[in-house]
Amino acid sequence: MRLLDELFRSKAVEKAISDETCLVRMLEVEAALANALASSELIPTAAARQIESCCNLNSIDAAALSAGAKRSGNIAIPLVNQLTRSVAAKNVEAAKFVHWGATSQDIIDTALVLQAREVLHLILDDLEQSCSALRRLTESHRNTLMPGRTWMQHALPITFGMKTAYMLSALHRQSRRLQDVLTSISVLQFGGAAGTLAALGDKGPAVAEEMAQRLGLSVPSTPWHSHRDRLAELAAALGVLAGSFGKIARDIALLSQTEIAEVSESQEDGRGTSSTMPQKSNPVFCAAILANSFRVPGLVSTVLAAMAQEHERGLGGWHAEWETIPEILSLAGGAAERAAELLAGLEVHPERMRANLEITHGLIFAEAVSMTLGRKIGKSAAHQLVARAVKESRSQRRNLSDVLHEHEEVSRHISAKELQDLFDPHKYLGSTHTFIDRVLAECAEPVGASHGAH
Amino acid sequence: MRLLDELFRSKAVEKAISDETCLVRMLEVEAALANALASSELIPTAAARQIESCCNLNSIDAAALSAGAKRSGNIAIPLVNQLTRSVAAKNVEAAKFVHWGATSQDIIDTALVLQAREVLHLILDDLEQSCSALRRLTESHRNTLMPGRTWMQHALPITFGMKTAYMLSALHRQSRRLQDVLTSISVLQFGGAAGTLAALGDKGPAVAEEMAQRLGLSVPSTPWHSHRDRLAELAAALGVLAGSFGKIARDIALLSQTEIAEVSESQEDGRGTSSTMPQKSNPVFCAAILANSFRVPGLVSTVLAAMAQEHERGLGGWHAEWETIPEILSLAGGAAERAAELLAGLEVHPERMRANLEITHGLIFAEAVSMTLGRKIGKSAAHQLVARAVKESRSQRRNLSDVLHEHEEVSRHISAKELQDLFDPHKYLGSTHTFIDRVLAECAEPVGASHGAH
Amino acid sequence: MRLLDELFRSKAVEKAISDETCLVRMLEVEAALANALASSELIPTAAARQIESCCNLNSIDAAALSAGAKRSGNIAIPLVNQLTRSVAAKNVEAAKFVHWGATSQDIIDTALVLQAREVLHLILDDLEQSCSALRRLTESHRNTLMPGRTWMQHALPITFGMKTAYMLSALHRQSRRLQDVLTSISVLQFGGAAGTLAALGDKGPAVAEEMAQRLGLSVPSTPWHSHRDRLAELAAALGVLAGSFGKIARDIALLSQTEIAEVSESQEDGRGTSSTMPQKSNPVFCAAILANSFRVPGLVSTVLAAMAQEHERGLGGWHAEWETIPEILSLAGGAAERAAELLAGLEVHPERMRANLEITHGLIFAEAVSMTLGRKIGKSAAHQLVARAVKESRSQRRNLSDVLHEHEEVSRHISAKELQDLFDPHKYLGSTHTFIDRVLAECAEPVGASHGAH
Amino acid sequence: MRLLDELFRSKAVEKAISDETCLVRMLEVEAALANALASSELIPTAAARQIESCCNLNSIDAAALSAGAKRSGNIAIPLVNQLTRSVAAKNVEAAKFVHWGATSQDIIDTALVLQAREVLHLILDDLEQSCSALRRLTESHRNTLMPGRTWMQHALPITFGMKTAYMLSALHRQSRRLQDVLTSISVLQFGGAAGTLAALGDKGPAVAEEMAQRLGLSVPSTPWHSHRDRLAELAAALGVLAGSFGKIARDIALLSQTEIAEVSESQEDGRGTSSTMPQKSNPVFCAAILANSFRVPGLVSTVLAAMAQEHERGLGGWHAEWETIPEILSLAGGAAERAAELLAGLEVHPERMRANLEITHGLIFAEAVSMTLGRKIGKSAAHQLVARAVKESRSQRRNLSDVLHEHEEVSRHISAKELQDLFDPHKYLGSTHTFIDRVLAECAEPVGASHGAH
Repeated sequence: MRLLDELFRSKAVEKAISDETCLVRMLEVEAALANALASSELIPTAAARQIESCCNLNSIDAAALSAGAKRSGNIAIPLVNQLTRSVAAKNVEAAKFVHWGATSQDIIDTALVLQAREVLHLILDDLEQSCSALRRLTESHRNTLMPGRTWMQHALPITFGMKTAYMLSALHRQSRRLQDVLTSISVLQFGGAAGTLAALGDKGPAVAEEMAQRLGLSVPSTPWHSHRDRLAELAAALGVLAGSFGKIARDIALLSQTEIAEVSESQEDGRGTSSTMPQKSNPVFCAAILANSFRVPGLVSTVLAAMAQEHERGLGGWHAEWETIPEILSLAGGAAERAAELLAGLEVHPERMRANLEITHGLIFAEAVSMTLGRKIGKSAAHQLVARAVKESRSQRRNLSDVLHEHEEVSRHISAKELQDLFDPHKYLGSTHTFIDRVLAECAEPVGASHGAH
Repeated sequence: MRLLDELFRSKAVEKAISDETCLVRMLEVEAALANALASSELIPTAAARQIESCCNLNSIDAAALSAGAKRSGNIAIPLVNQLTRSVAAKNVEAAKFVHWGATSQDIIDTALVLQAREVLHLILDDLEQSCSALRRLTESHRNTLMPGRTWMQHALPITFGMKTAYMLSALHRQSRRLQDVLTSISVLQFGGAAGTLAALGDKGPAVAEEMAQRLGLSVPSTPWHSHRDRLAELAAALGVLAGSFGKIARDIALLSQTEIAEVSESQEDGRGTSSTMPQKSNPVFCAAILANSFRVPGLVSTVLAAMAQEHERGLGGWHAEWETIPEILSLAGGAAERAAELLAGLEVHPERMRANLEITHGLIFAEAVSMTLGRKIGKSAAHQLVARAVKESRSQRRNLSDVLHEHEEVSRHISAKELQDLFDPHKYLGSTHTFIDRVLAECAEPVGASHGAH
Repeated sequence: MRLLDELFRSKAVEKAISDETCLVRMLEVEAALANALASSELIPTAAARQIESCCNLNSIDAAALSAGAKRSGNIAIPLVNQLTRSVAAKNVEAAKFVHWGATSQDIIDTALVLQAREVLHLILDDLEQSCSALRRLTESHRNTLMPGRTWMQHALPITFGMKTAYMLSALHRQSRRLQDVLTSISVLQFGGAAGTLAALGDKGPAVAEEMAQRLGLSVPSTPWHSHRDRLAELAAALGVLAGSFGKIARDIALLSQTEIAEVSESQEDGRGTSSTMPQKSNPVFCAAILANSFRVPGLVSTVLAAMAQEHERGLGGWHAEWETIPEILSLAGGAAERAAELLAGLEVHPERMRANLEITHGLIFAEAVSMTLGRKIGKSAAHQLVARAVKESRSQRRNLSDVLHEHEEVSRHISAKELQDLFDPHKYLGSTHTFIDRVLAECAEPVGASHGAH
Repeated sequence: MRLLDELFRSKAVEKAISDETCLVRMLEVEAALANALASSELIPTAAARQIESCCNLNSIDAAALSAGAKRSGNIAIPLVNQLTRSVAAKNVEAAKFVHWGATSQDIIDTALVLQAREVLHLILDDLEQSCSALRRLTESHRNTLMPGRTWMQHALPITFGMKTAYMLSALHRQSRRLQDVLTSISVLQFGGAAGTLAALGDKGPAVAEEMAQRLGLSVPSTPWHSHRDRLAELAAALGVLAGSFGKIARDIALLSQTEIAEVSESQEDGRGTSSTMPQKSNPVFCAAILANSFRVPGLVSTVLAAMAQEHERGLGGWHAEWETIPEILSLAGGAAERAAELLAGLEVHPERMRANLEITHGLIFAEAVSMTLGRKIGKSAAHQLVARAVKESRSQRRNLSDVLHEHEEVSRHISAKELQDLFDPHKYLGSTHTFIDRVLAECAEPVGASHGAH
């Protein structure tokens, strides 16, 4: 394991995309191919059985593969060579039929699909953990008042539950998107050397059907060796996902600032301590999630830029995907796991939220007054009047309600009681609760419920 | 119009995203808002009518808007100011209710959604043009033999119709993706200053419903001011689309090389001539499409990286989208139009394809022999035997079939007739026709058929 | 002018890269070429004079150029055609020699170099404005105490002048970098159709020398049609520059938050007002700078990815640069101008800085105590002891100094006076003033001083 | 080692940036710090010696570091903890002074600088290998005629030595750029918790000076914890470098196409064989270099986008660099090594170059005729006349010289002998040899000569 893996990554995801798992998946594809060929009577059933029995890591000398990859330009060729030798050691006849009719890319791409599928399931599970935490926070804090902030300035009162509901809604959409991508990428790659399956005569489709069934994949209408839109779609969807995590982490980091202190990361296990400053409590998981969300967009652009792959199978573009797509899966997966942990342990400080709401001495209610007054004297005139009062309030360090209370044109249109109400944040929440209810209703059930056993 | 617009862009798309259209869409949103407010009896119907009647470019001094945008940080604030003055000039009372309850971002985002929707329809139309051309090419050239190429080297025989069928299949998937995105982005943005619709009391949802209906949009469960996943999904989908166009243009450019010359761009209207070289016929549209496909990935990464928008409405990230998303629409739209023109006028040279197929004196059939022989002596042994024959064929400049014909172990397993057949490309196409048939069946109908009137 | 230009861009830069200026620069290159050819006696001097006299926008129908660019794949071909016709109208003989020996790319690249040079000078001027403002701020606020923040949490006391000195130092480095890039990109492009200057026999180098001298450029050792490293270096340097501006804008935006309020943007001319909230004062220029700094990295990646241009002159990669490099110049130039304005008008609130320093009741001095104590009992033990005191201070809402004062092990090692001193921020600034002095010394003179008249 | 490392990476570079080396470098920095503190009499010399003696991997439990990094948000904190325990086991007193006055980022950044420096030296060495191979190719093939190609079409004759000279010139510029970057990044990071070196009183600068000297670095005017321009410059320079390698690999891949076959990669050790096609000889190293050059631009954009780091030390942006900058070093280093190997073994086929030059039956000389004729009848008229002859030549499949020979207006202006000369490629090379000579002169000496022992 690399030094920063626990910080940035998820162990389960790393396992799913490790070199070792990659080889296992490639061998699974070779086994499925052998069995499918036997089903179509293209190779002897005994040969298929023999091949399948060798399709495991015992047959493989991983160290030698890397040198082979430098020679051949991919990992499948040396793997097939080793597998063939391993089968031959048991049964020379069976060894004739290893990798029959396939091309390296069939194996590599299908193995990648299998890995991506597993990672998507893991991410969906972590997303559901985040959603679950956000549901709890939304329910607990639907009435917890805090300043809404726009342009990083106080705007209007909101509730913390509304903030988390909007996050929940975004992650729920992400779950749906990933479900769609899961379907669209779960396709077999099988085309032979040039996408014609020439070596199988007219039995190509039957073999493909059988292989796909064995691997739990669907059969696309054609091979897609140099049409990479499905993988690009996967990368792009994970880019969008990472962006949503980045938004959440950014907000939590901002709310955790010393002067604001409305939430804080769990400090369990000494999380967030500094090497030199005893008072520090750094938002470590926010940093990790933000880092990952910074890193994915550039990788997505790489996958998109690599799509212009030449002719029937490309040069360089395909190779650029090999480590990039797993890296996207890894960083998105790490962000998903870190986010689930962050949200599960998030500490909320309603009293600080309330205190911050009042830090401007009523200025956050300026719009409420302006709108009410606007109904009487017009939006524009009201806006200007209140803006002047805001200035006065600031320079005199008095509460805006007091300043307005003394203002003749205000009292002409707004009674003292009315004015007092305008400075009651609970009365200026508009549709907050409607929005919260909608989100809770639509996100009651995990999207992931349908993604089933895996 | 900018100097390079005709080369890189589509006039219709440029119109849809022009500054002028942007203002028109924003004014449409203001009109829909006024009418919806009147429906909910929040403002007088007469005021709404007056506002609506001013919601056109006659009310607007575009030159003054830019200075206003520098002051306010967005274009909606000066626009609303001008609109208010324009309404006030007709009816002071009505002017009170301009932009009532909305925030700038409600207007800007919804206008962007309307523009994106129009561009997606235009792109879907151009995609259908490309698909239509590809269907024709596939039908005409399903039997036109040519070399399949992998790693930019001859691999196996394919047909040109197979190549175009795979392109068709990819563009068909892209159409489906854009249809999905069209649905997911066609949502209203309406949340007021901090996403609570506070200024509308409990009538926010009703107003939103009415606005959305008037604009032909759906109502999302919550405002999405700082949750930009839908727009990021749009950008990402266009990135994937541009990648598919890049792949097609790359292939055509490669096939157009002087030594290969299997296809050429239409030279209608003197397209592709050089300033100094009379013999030149440059693949101009390929260059334009490739250029656009190079440019979109970086822009997509910008949109993804800008997703971490602060709190209820962000600072900088939102601003980074304003020109970037239209630029993505523009470049993708330009690529779509140029691709439709390129494919419609593509000249195919079957005789060159056939000549190139034979340029290696039979080496392209090496796999065919190897597989057949492999059934007898094992894949690995056959591979090695044929590889040796390939070397001989190269050094002696003789046809591979002649070399093999003389080879004892070959003749032991393969008859002269059989060997001859192995060098017949029509007999080594495997599932080519099945794949073509599948694509033609699945792409018989334009996906766009359902995207209807717009 | 586009609607958002005043917000995001600089008028002077926009002028330098406008379509119109681009044409003017291309015509200047054609004129320099004609004169240089005449100097080498390759064309008649009278012809060169006639060509030069037509090298102005009067000869050009810009509207027709765009259609020509779609046909030819670049703007130089139709421009040369128009210029030739225009010369021919005056002197048929002279018209024979328009664009003699050059290729389109010679003209387009050299014109781009001229434009980039002008923009770099403009940016250097704006950088010097920023540096000047930062020097003033540094001098004024070298003793203005404020909380230093790491991980967005209070760390140790610093001074605002130190913060601005570090910014100054960074911008000073950027100036030096741009000066270097200015030198490295100020090279002529002149190679003819394939980089051999074949059409000029053996006089190519002499013509190049003369052209370069007329244009104020240097002559590179070879043409560089498809080796784009100098332009990529330009793009990359502007990417690094934009990043520094983004850092500055990010810090100012964070310091402007309602709860922190240590600085604020100038509100001159009503900058930063909201459409609905009268109390708002949005950091508009921070938003614009951040937006530009978000947008440049993706564009830089486009230029880098486009470097793999084919053979002697490429297809697609070159085309991808045409609008991307000017866009990078534009966004970097806009950020530079906005930053100069932002820093010149920045309002600093020392009393808020001081208040925030004390907001944690002494926790910000935890390191000071820990280090002093560490000298006695070891860093690790001291760290733990102080960390416990921090906890106590927090839970009891007492000043850390009071808590520590009562602590036996502390008083054993640190006297009351010493302890008091440890909570004096002026005494815990370390090398702050040394660092400030160094920066002021090294940045006393504008780097730009040497970039001279332009 | 990972499976694809031998294909994409360089062993020496991987070692220099490995987790293990990273820890070694961090420990070197801690040792240098301890010794420097002792020199300034801030800690006892004996303590420094004890600390230094523990600064090696024996003190470290790498497995535990990863869990610590998840807790602390970086690797330095758990490393310092382990080091402290290890020192304490030997000498409790000395353990008090481990990491005295420094912050985690001081250690991490300085270690990164040391790693980057080593990798730059390795890359410069590989660059020199490439330059050396290109010098040889240029000298051997300065007269080897081949088609120059623009827009992927034949343009004019060039020589292969000119092509390699232009590559050489580009790589030579890259070496100079890397030398500059080597200087600018070789700076110490040392600022303590908030960039003030507060914990060292007034001795910060002296300690920094001593540390820097011990590590062979220079002392910057200020700490640069959140001003990342130097690292961004490093990343950007490697991006530009990778682009040049991509250009070279792209050209070689294009020249290796089956129909063109002008060069081929060495097939030593069975490089480039296929899993199914015995005739294949894939340009494997081109693919690897192109893949790396595709991957770097997105990573550069990540580093640029991460520059907006908050306040005195940032959150997320810094973290995003940790794996990204080493990955850029790794991919650029891999491309450099692969390019050196590719160029050293490149096989050139002059007879194919010559054959391809003639494949168009003289069309490649169209410009030569057009320019000569242009001197008589004007460039534009000549261009049109020759363009017509080109068409005739194509449709009649006759050599262009024969077609022109029969043309009256041609023979009026050009004698038969002259016409024959125009179709002699050696006579239409213009300044080719001058350009080659310049490059050979300027690149005679390795830039790397000065980068000295390391």
